[in-house]
Amino acid sequence: MNRRTFFKNGSLLTLGTTLLQPFNTSANNISFDIGDKNKKAKNIIIVVSDGMSIGTLNMADLYLSRKTGKGSNWLQLYKDNRVNRALMDMASASSIVTDSAAASSSWGGGARINNGALNVSKDGEEHMPIWQKFKQAGKKAGCVTTVPITHATPAGFCINSKSRNAQETIAEKYLEQKFDVLMGGGGDYFSSEKRKDKIDMYQKFSSNGYEVVKTRNEMISAPTKKPILGVFNDGGLPYSKDRENNKELSKKIPTLAEMTKKAIDVMKDNPKGFVLQVEAGKVDWAAHGNDITGLIYDQIAHDEAVQVAMDFAEQNDDTLVIITTDHGNANPGVIYGSKANDNFDAIQKYKYTNEWILNGIGKETSISGVKERVDYANNIALTTEECNLLLSYYKKLQKQEGLYNPKKLPFKVLAEIQKKHNSVGWISMQHSADYVELAMYGPGSHLLKPFIKNTDLHYLMLEAAEVENKF
Amino acid sequence: MNRRTFFKNGSLLTLGTTLLQPFNTSANNISFDIGDKNKKAKNIIIVVSDGMSIGTLNMADLYLSRKTGKGSNWLQLYKDNRVNRALMDMASASSIVTDSAAASSSWGGGARINNGALNVSKDGEEHMPIWQKFKQAGKKAGCVTTVPITHATPAGFCINSKSRNAQETIAEKYLEQKFDVLMGGGGDYFSSEKRKDKIDMYQKFSSNGYEVVKTRNEMISAPTKKPILGVFNDGGLPYSKDRENNKELSKKIPTLAEMTKKAIDVMKDNPKGFVLQVEAGKVDWAAHGNDITGLIYDQIAHDEAVQVAMDFAEQNDDTLVIITTDHGNANPGVIYGSKANDNFDAIQKYKYTNEWILNGIGKETSISGVKERVDYANNIALTTEECNLLLSYYKKLQKQEGLYNPKKLPFKVLAEIQKKHNSVGWISMQHSADYVELAMYGPGSHLLKPFIKNTDLHYLMLEAAEVENKF
Repeated sequence: MNRRTFFKNGSLLTLGTTLLQPFNTSANNISFDIGDKNKKAKNIIIVVSDGMSIGTLNMADLYLSRKTGKGSNWLQLYKDNRVNRALMDMASASSIVTDSAAASSSWGGGARINNGALNVSKDGEEHMPIWQKFKQAGKKAGCVTTVPITHATPAGFCINSKSRNAQETIAEKYLEQKFDVLMGGGGDYFSSEKRKDKIDMYQKFSSNGYEVVKTRNEMISAPTKKPILGVFNDGGLPYSKDRENNKELSKKIPTLAEMTKKAIDVMKDNPKGFVLQVEAGKVDWAAHGNDITGLIYDQIAHDEAVQVAMDFAEQNDDTLVIITTDHGNANPGVIYGSKANDNFDAIQKYKYTNEWILNGIGKETSISGVKERVDYANNIALTTEECNLLLSYYKKLQKQEGLYNPKKLPFKVLAEIQKKHNSVGWISMQHSADYVELAMYGPGSHLLKPFIKNTDLHYLMLEAAEVENKF
Repeated sequence: MNRRTFFKNGSLLTLGTTLLQPFNTSANNISFDIGDKNKKAKNIIIVVSDGMSIGTLNMADLYLSRKTGKGSNWLQLYKDNRVNRALMDMASASSIVTDSAAASSSWGGGARINNGALNVSKDGEEHMPIWQKFKQAGKKAGCVTTVPITHATPAGFCINSKSRNAQETIAEKYLEQKFDVLMGGGGDYFSSEKRKDKIDMYQKFSSNGYEVVKTRNEMISAPTKKPILGVFNDGGLPYSKDRENNKELSKKIPTLAEMTKKAIDVMKDNPKGFVLQVEAGKVDWAAHGNDITGLIYDQIAHDEAVQVAMDFAEQNDDTLVIITTDHGNANPGVIYGSKANDNFDAIQKYKYTNEWILNGIGKETSISGVKERVDYANNIALTTEECNLLLSYYKKLQKQEGLYNPKKLPFKVLAEIQKKHNSVGWISMQHSADYVELAMYGPGSHLLKPFIKNTDLHYLMLEAAEVENKF
């Protein structure tokens, strides 16, 4: 007899909560009310930090602890003994190191597929994405992200596509499925000016009953009774730290936490509940760039979205919150040394990301110009040799190419220089095979075992919501 | 009312195990018998992998899974839902990145002290080491390790010293305290030929009732009724993989699992129980050397010792097993790429560690000699340029210096070359600030919260064993 059956039918229920209370107050790591195990998860909010090595989680927590005296919301849940947690093996069908498309598909479709695809196996088999399943079960479903809303992680919960790169088509598929909330970047795939087929997807969403918003204020004042499409930038949204220091961007672009709040408001009154994926997508981009300022502040933005989800779940005990990442990236960490504390704390004074620094340098920039920019952004005095090294990369580039193809900018060189000053190291500029951290709060979280495969999460979400997997 | 008190005094006890059983069979992450919570931990075995970044645990598990179809014993405990686990903040008093001395002292003495010291605070305050506390409570106490038995991790549980480097004195302090099992390397600190004071510590231990053994066979046949000192090498023990491929070493040196087994046999019949620290110390040394063969096989040696501890604990339900590490080191991981699987699997064919490779090269070695050695050890065909690069480091060295000071050997260069072939990257050759993985099985493990400070473990061990902290 499994536990749920026992509780549904068995005599222990008659003991009530008074007698059972001792089991919950003990110092074990399950502190949610045992009654939750009989509750079904009407709502699910999954908050993903894309490409978050465990070192990223640790550094954000350490950064906050040292700066404010209080660590991250994520780890506070551990300190308060309020979640169940696990390690999760994220391998894809094609590799021990997944990409975000296969990773999201493993959760979204319940099957491991090759890197690069979205819920389509090598042999062409399509796996129904879990947000479609939940839509069929009467729930509202949505995604918010800091990268294009058509990017791999949201797409893996929503649609099927042989290639993650078909972002224009993915925008169309979203409309076909009538998802209730779609917010993030990605104007390139909605705007008639940017799309190859010149179709105005904004107009299409609008004429299909969507509220279409393009600024933070529009989002805030949008009605909560209509489905919403929010696209706030052409590509990804700016990094949190760069946004924070730019009045125009702060006005135009909402934070991940603000999008999360709006998404919940739009969907929360649905009688059959809602499912929401929240992605801090630029944590991954920052790791690809070994960009410590991008990484830490966007991880903190993720953490603030965690708090929004938790605030809702605390008031609505039929809400399962899942907090995790889809794979490691660059395995960053603070390195031992006599100055490790001071070096790491110096990051508190960083004003802009490495993306901001490097995009403001060109082959015409002088050595003093480079020095000034890095000093302004990082409070680091570069040597002339270091400036020349950075500039040498721009001289190799075609004119302006660096502005449009960040991967050719000298991110690695800058991170190596910064390492001497902030003690943060990186193993590469790519994903890693590490098992990832996963935490759950609320009804259904008792289903989590301490080590799971990525695909297990698909079935756990259905089971927690008591949605039979017959589609 | 805390839980233990409740169970000791309360009426729920009368419900017996039948009614309570449903709480244990559910899919939460505490599956040890709830009755354990009333049991005290008569015995404690703590199995430490020194300097194990989470990536090291993951890679060993992945390596074993792909080679044998079954992962590590450590993670199998998670898969089988048999342990309670946590993240642990290992910072020392002086740094967010600890060394092994401060780390072991945090567990051993219950206080954060500066890096480099053993249970002595900056102001000179001495903290009584936990193995001394347990000795006073009537338990037997011991340590086994693959590095010198006088090294930081065992010493932190056993003695006070302003400096971890005072290994000769540490050997004397061990004798004063009459610990029951001391096994590992470290002949340099026991032999009259090697010690500065020319004292024969072997003779001193022997005349104080110890069985002194210096080979695997002597250890195996040693009586279990006497305390035992086993010193099997001058410095650290050889890496597991180098030992495995050398008949002489295999004969002379026991494995960590074998030492663990012997240590348990020597102490298990004590009426008041025993406490044992097991350390895979060379996992840390391998990480310092970015030495993947050293790292993976010594992590597996740790894992085999975990199994020995678990086998005993399964037969003796008054035994608490703690599995953890004292800090990250080098944050290694498998990096994304089209050949990641094949590259990582190539490590299965590695025959020797990088230490073995580099110690066999000298400034007189020819290019073909270098090629042959690396090909033999790693199945990697070096380019002439790579050979010249490696050899250039030997030409900088004083004669023979490289043989006695491995840190000056080109470990980093070799790891960088191997990375192209095995897809494993490292952030540095030093410790990292990452929070570490911790798992517990058996009585007392319910006391573990999902996030703890290193010093909490000191008090948890005492509480689990119901030894009042009055010394």
